[in-house]
Amino acid sequence: MANEVKEITSRDVNFAKWYTDVVKKADLVDYSSVKGSMIIRPYGYAIWENMQKILDEKFKETGHENVQMPMFIPESLLNVEKEHVEGFAPEVAWVTHGGSEKLEERMCVRPTSEVLFCEHFEKIINSYRDLPKLYNQWCTIVRWEKTTRPFLRSREILWQEGHTMHATSEEAKEETLRMLKVYEDFQRNVLALPVIVGKKTDKEKFAGAEASYTLEAMMYDGVALQNGTSHYFGNHFAEAFGIKFLNKDNKFEAPYQTSWGVTTRMIGSIIMTHGDDNGLVLPPNIAPFKTIIIPIGKDDSVKDKAMEIMNNLKNNNITTKIDLTEKSPGFKFAEAEVKGYPVRIEVGPRDLANGVVTLARRDTFEKIQVKVEDVVSEVEKLLVDIQNNLYDRALKRRESMTYEALNYEEFTEIANTKPGFIKVNWCGDVACENKIKDDFGIKSRCLIEDEAVTGKCVVCGKDAKHRVYFGRQY
Amino acid sequence: MANEVKEITSRDVNFAKWYTDVVKKADLVDYSSVKGSMIIRPYGYAIWENMQKILDEKFKETGHENVQMPMFIPESLLNVEKEHVEGFAPEVAWVTHGGSEKLEERMCVRPTSEVLFCEHFEKIINSYRDLPKLYNQWCTIVRWEKTTRPFLRSREILWQEGHTMHATSEEAKEETLRMLKVYEDFQRNVLALPVIVGKKTDKEKFAGAEASYTLEAMMYDGVALQNGTSHYFGNHFAEAFGIKFLNKDNKFEAPYQTSWGVTTRMIGSIIMTHGDDNGLVLPPNIAPFKTIIIPIGKDDSVKDKAMEIMNNLKNNNITTKIDLTEKSPGFKFAEAEVKGYPVRIEVGPRDLANGVVTLARRDTFEKIQVKVEDVVSEVEKLLVDIQNNLYDRALKRRESMTYEALNYEEFTEIANTKPGFIKVNWCGDVACENKIKDDFGIKSRCLIEDEAVTGKCVVCGKDAKHRVYFGRQY
Repeated sequence: MANEVKEITSRDVNFAKWYTDVVKKADLVDYSSVKGSMIIRPYGYAIWENMQKILDEKFKETGHENVQMPMFIPESLLNVEKEHVEGFAPEVAWVTHGGSEKLEERMCVRPTSEVLFCEHFEKIINSYRDLPKLYNQWCTIVRWEKTTRPFLRSREILWQEGHTMHATSEEAKEETLRMLKVYEDFQRNVLALPVIVGKKTDKEKFAGAEASYTLEAMMYDGVALQNGTSHYFGNHFAEAFGIKFLNKDNKFEAPYQTSWGVTTRMIGSIIMTHGDDNGLVLPPNIAPFKTIIIPIGKDDSVKDKAMEIMNNLKNNNITTKIDLTEKSPGFKFAEAEVKGYPVRIEVGPRDLANGVVTLARRDTFEKIQVKVEDVVSEVEKLLVDIQNNLYDRALKRRESMTYEALNYEEFTEIANTKPGFIKVNWCGDVACENKIKDDFGIKSRCLIEDEAVTGKCVVCGKDAKHRVYFGRQY
Repeated sequence: MANEVKEITSRDVNFAKWYTDVVKKADLVDYSSVKGSMIIRPYGYAIWENMQKILDEKFKETGHENVQMPMFIPESLLNVEKEHVEGFAPEVAWVTHGGSEKLEERMCVRPTSEVLFCEHFEKIINSYRDLPKLYNQWCTIVRWEKTTRPFLRSREILWQEGHTMHATSEEAKEETLRMLKVYEDFQRNVLALPVIVGKKTDKEKFAGAEASYTLEAMMYDGVALQNGTSHYFGNHFAEAFGIKFLNKDNKFEAPYQTSWGVTTRMIGSIIMTHGDDNGLVLPPNIAPFKTIIIPIGKDDSVKDKAMEIMNNLKNNNITTKIDLTEKSPGFKFAEAEVKGYPVRIEVGPRDLANGVVTLARRDTFEKIQVKVEDVVSEVEKLLVDIQNNLYDRALKRRESMTYEALNYEEFTEIANTKPGFIKVNWCGDVACENKIKDDFGIKSRCLIEDEAVTGKCVVCGKDAKHRVYFGRQY
């Protein structure tokens, strides 16, 4: 129905086209003459605002403070840490002129803010009493990508970046994992995404980091989306920037650093994990509106009852929208499906005469009739159920699309025929990791830390040191 | 006391130096190697977060939705509206390269987003049913200022910009004034700023606007700070961008537009209106922490009691900080004064033995002793009192520094000897307005719309058409 009204390509026919149809027709984004950037429309931005609100609260609960750094980085400042600049310089936007004057030194728009934070930390950290510094920033960054797709890969990225400094490496490592866990809980419980969490290989870690941790989600088509990262830097940057503190033994020491971030890409993850051929499917815990009420017919008493039900839901903290436009009910149902409201409430004269309304689940299309006086409690039950069902469905799909390859023949067979993740044993040699990338365009996703390592490297056959997920990525 | 500990210049000796001392010593901002930009530190950013929270709620209550536009504007897009580009082109930052490649067309970092919104409106507005569009955006803009000062004039500005489109000019004009009123209420009731609200002269209005309204605050030194603006555009931009809608008579028409914005400059306004020689003074309704508790001595039972009082205040929605560092009480008092916490709560062993604690007001330095069990209710009373006192004090100062000049001789006398605002009669001729600017460097602030116009123009002596405030500005 929805795909007739709104003309959404089937996701099994052309997943890429399905994706762009959904982001456009659910009114999440629009394009502009600014190539590689997107306009985030009210419905899309409301999802991001919900993400911000929930995460910001968690950041503050864990003792972090928000700050705002400059958006520009002078070229010389970007150059201070060697690995870092090599990672980012090829993809930054350069500001060369202010008004009609050429700048003495060009500046890039921040692709990430490690160097800006370090310059600041150098000034404000003097003693162990000044530590830890637990900062976070909500902002826009720029990376000059060649090919872009809304939410997934964009030249401008809305994100948050946490930057912290600690007196000991142990404490910084703990922080790296603490924030990874905050992300994991958020993505599992709020976004209903069964993410795989683990450490990146050295080849895939962040430019300048000692260890990078990642949250990897599997999309409907079996392709991975990196949904967030948390990095431990040791004191690389601190040393490069001359950041020192007097420790409790009265000796100068370079502090230990972390950074961690998530972006609007998580919206892409929700779309490609939960969406279907009728459009968006939003997990109740992140949906801007948990229910939409559609009154049927032009009867004023029906509209009045619908308004009463809406107010009742709102008073119970269930965000609700009502569609009072003049379109046909069928059209409204389809629109509500495209937009992915978790529960649709149909309020019609015949149902009302029997004291009931109809609730339709977006995830399963199941309909139930409930008594008007039970709407709030029944909706509450449904929302919990939908949230859990979306998670379970995504987890089952991920499990059914995850394979084990014991040797290169098996790996080749799977890589060539089956979308999804491939679990392998790996010797730890970057040459073997590179071979997989060269042969199939597949990168390692992360190390699997909760499985015992026995057996031989899937590429070279030497003794394995790690278990690793491999998978294609967005 | 505070100025000894923290070395703040007296505001009567050197107001400019006093200002930069306060922003720095109250830990509001820091500088970096990015010239003309500032780092907003946690305490400063917390004030901005409070402003955002309160205003965003008001915007949503009045039906506005948040969106996010690109941060770049291609040169050709900026050029579409002639007056607008002339106003902004001289002060934009130009991005010319992405990575190592020169862009085909250079782009500026948005100095404001009218043209981006218009390009989008052109696509999404087709019928009167699509109107009004009530959008807002929280973001950073860039204007390449030559001389900068934290919060007052900065190359990067954190702000919100509302952009709306309406079917009729009446509705758009109403919107312009509605949002002006939202700003006025916020600035008066939350920031305790007795702003003057009025229309800009044609010379001083926004590039491309038909009418600009402004909120003008007077700082301690008598100099004006423009604290926000609301613009009515007619359908200039809509016509330039080909935005058309089918009206109820089935005819195409260009819709009517508004924009309105406030920035972190409001933080500067608070500092320069309420601050004193001991540092920042924050109105309770915007302070990140309404009270600070300072336990005196090392007695654990004192600390326990202090913690109990803090929890009690927090449970009553009174944001509270406690200073448990090892510094001396005198030093802590001075620090608390620099940071401008509205109420300081001194918890000492001798007071506690008598069942009391001491409350010190930041605005008047007055101290009172209250029973421990009355702390919450007494603090609540004090906070209301401080909020009102700050407003009244600022209003009295503004009134005492506002003068009337009936002719050019009087104007000259006042302009040369007295800081503050000058009320005049004006014929409406830009030549007279320009003469004042050329002779004294003083611009018109806004028209005075609630006073009858009788008398002669203060410059040329012809019949007056307007009453106007003149005043120097930041």
